[in-house]
Amino acid sequence: MCPPGCLHAVCETATRRGLLKAGFAFASAAAGLGAIAPVQAHAQATAARHSFSRVQDLTHTLFEGFPTFSGEKWFTVEKPVTWEKDKVNLHRWTLMEHTGTHMDAPLHFSKDGMSVDMIPITDLIVPLAVIDIRERAAADPDASLTPDDVKAWESRNGPLPEGACVAMNSGWHKLLDSPKFTGRDADGRNHTPGFHAETADLLIRERNVKGLAVDTLSLDPGLASGEFPVHYQWLGSGRWGVEAMAGLDDLPETGALLVVAGPKVRGATGGPSRILALV
Amino acid sequence: MCPPGCLHAVCETATRRGLLKAGFAFASAAAGLGAIAPVQAHAQATAARHSFSRVQDLTHTLFEGFPTFSGEKWFTVEKPVTWEKDKVNLHRWTLMEHTGTHMDAPLHFSKDGMSVDMIPITDLIVPLAVIDIRERAAADPDASLTPDDVKAWESRNGPLPEGACVAMNSGWHKLLDSPKFTGRDADGRNHTPGFHAETADLLIRERNVKGLAVDTLSLDPGLASGEFPVHYQWLGSGRWGVEAMAGLDDLPETGALLVVAGPKVRGATGGPSRILALV
Ligand SMILES: [Zn+2]
Ligand SMILES: [Zn+2]
Repeated sequence: MCPPGCLHAVCETATRRGLLKAGFAFASAAAGLGAIAPVQAHAQATAARHSFSRVQDLTHTLFEGFPTFSGEKWFTVEKPVTWEKDKVNLHRWTLMEHTGTHMDAPLHFSKDGMSVDMIPITDLIVPLAVIDIRERAAADPDASLTPDDVKAWESRNGPLPEGACVAMNSGWHKLLDSPKFTGRDADGRNHTPGFHAETADLLIRERNVKGLAVDTLSLDPGLASGEFPVHYQWLGSGRWGVEAMAGLDDLPETGALLVVAGPKVRGATGGPSRILALV
Repeated sequence: MCPPGCLHAVCETATRRGLLKAGFAFASAAAGLGAIAPVQAHAQATAARHSFSRVQDLTHTLFEGFPTFSGEKWFTVEKPVTWEKDKVNLHRWTLMEHTGTHMDAPLHFSKDGMSVDMIPITDLIVPLAVIDIRERAAADPDASLTPDDVKAWESRNGPLPEGACVAMNSGWHKLLDSPKFTGRDADGRNHTPGFHAETADLLIRERNVKGLAVDTLSLDPGLASGEFPVHYQWLGSGRWGVEAMAGLDDLPETGALLVVAGPKVRGATGGPSRILALV
């Protein structure tokens, strides 16, 4: 028998829904914790309660010379105020929004989609599903994450969580210091893994997914540069993306909560973001 | 009696430690959830487990013309790539690091303190203590948060949580559109509330606090411009700050977890940050 306010029923509820495995716990209400709440109230639980014991930083450090999609320099730091001169340090940055580990807002590839500041914060803290295509990508930098990869993930983990972000782990996050990170060839074409257009189509039509994330510089495979079918379809549908994510190897396939701390800048089409996983 | 893997004992543990009220829950280990774990194991719980059911955005939207400490324009947006011309939107920003809702790294007011990218992410996700001085600040924009305010908070809530961020709610976060936000007078001096230097001293010497946060443009009261005793002492001690925080009115005095999603930029003295509370 539970004492008042105990989480016992939470456990049962979560197990029944198969969500405890995914790192979620449910409680009747935050206010019920520590207060006198009958067990009966637990059965009426509706408010989602998340819990975590570990934080993982999925953000690369940004620096002048961080590889960019176009090959141009997209980040510059000046030091107009220095300790030596002013006894204060304060720098000026000039940057293109899609630099470093960053997010893509719908506005990036649409006429009038949402900018970063318009996306509710609750749509930026979502269950994370990590799909591992490292082996195939190591053999072929033009590999893409296909609908079959999604279905294989689901056969192991159950349906994609509602409102999830689907992240591609291609292994590219470990190649930041290598020419392979962009894979630019003599013709100026990039060779990097990405989402297949049919996968974006599947996730839009048949699943409830809020975001796509990649550890490369583009949601689309490098070869799709200029066409950008996933960018146009995915961002055009009002959904968001994260590019150049780090640290994906140490995450479970499912169960983490992703925090996309994007820059709350009016009208921003994207921008450097702090990306975290709560596990 | 608990079923295997139940959170019953978690509840008891947390209540015993008086931490459940503070929004924390403890579990034996993440791996134990949903798996077979004897009640005995719960009693050996050591790993901190955090839980929340609500996210609150404490970030102002940044825009050209956002008030700055010096009165200069510190944020500019250009639009070199547009939908009309390119069927893509992509902007360029030029900004001084300490613009909008932002963090101060130790390097900002020290010769060689930590830059933003050097601060472990676990030091940026901490218990939040909100100290309300709105009434006094409304009567006097040169009011400061004193050691007595800290002690009064503790008399109501118990000792400041280990590793906390102490946030001043002066009510200034509601004045962003008003000249009162900077309170700049005819002599160019700002009139805004801030932390008293003795408070920084108390928190460094007699408490374990990682960060200070304010809803104004400076940790120091505006009148201390040029001297900056809190900036030099606090940041110089290796601790961080957050300035121009929003949304403080809707938070509990204690119990929320603060997420300071600062910009992971090499050598940054600070920068626009997404600040969240997990409640
Ligand atoms: Zn982008
Ligand atoms: Zn600052």
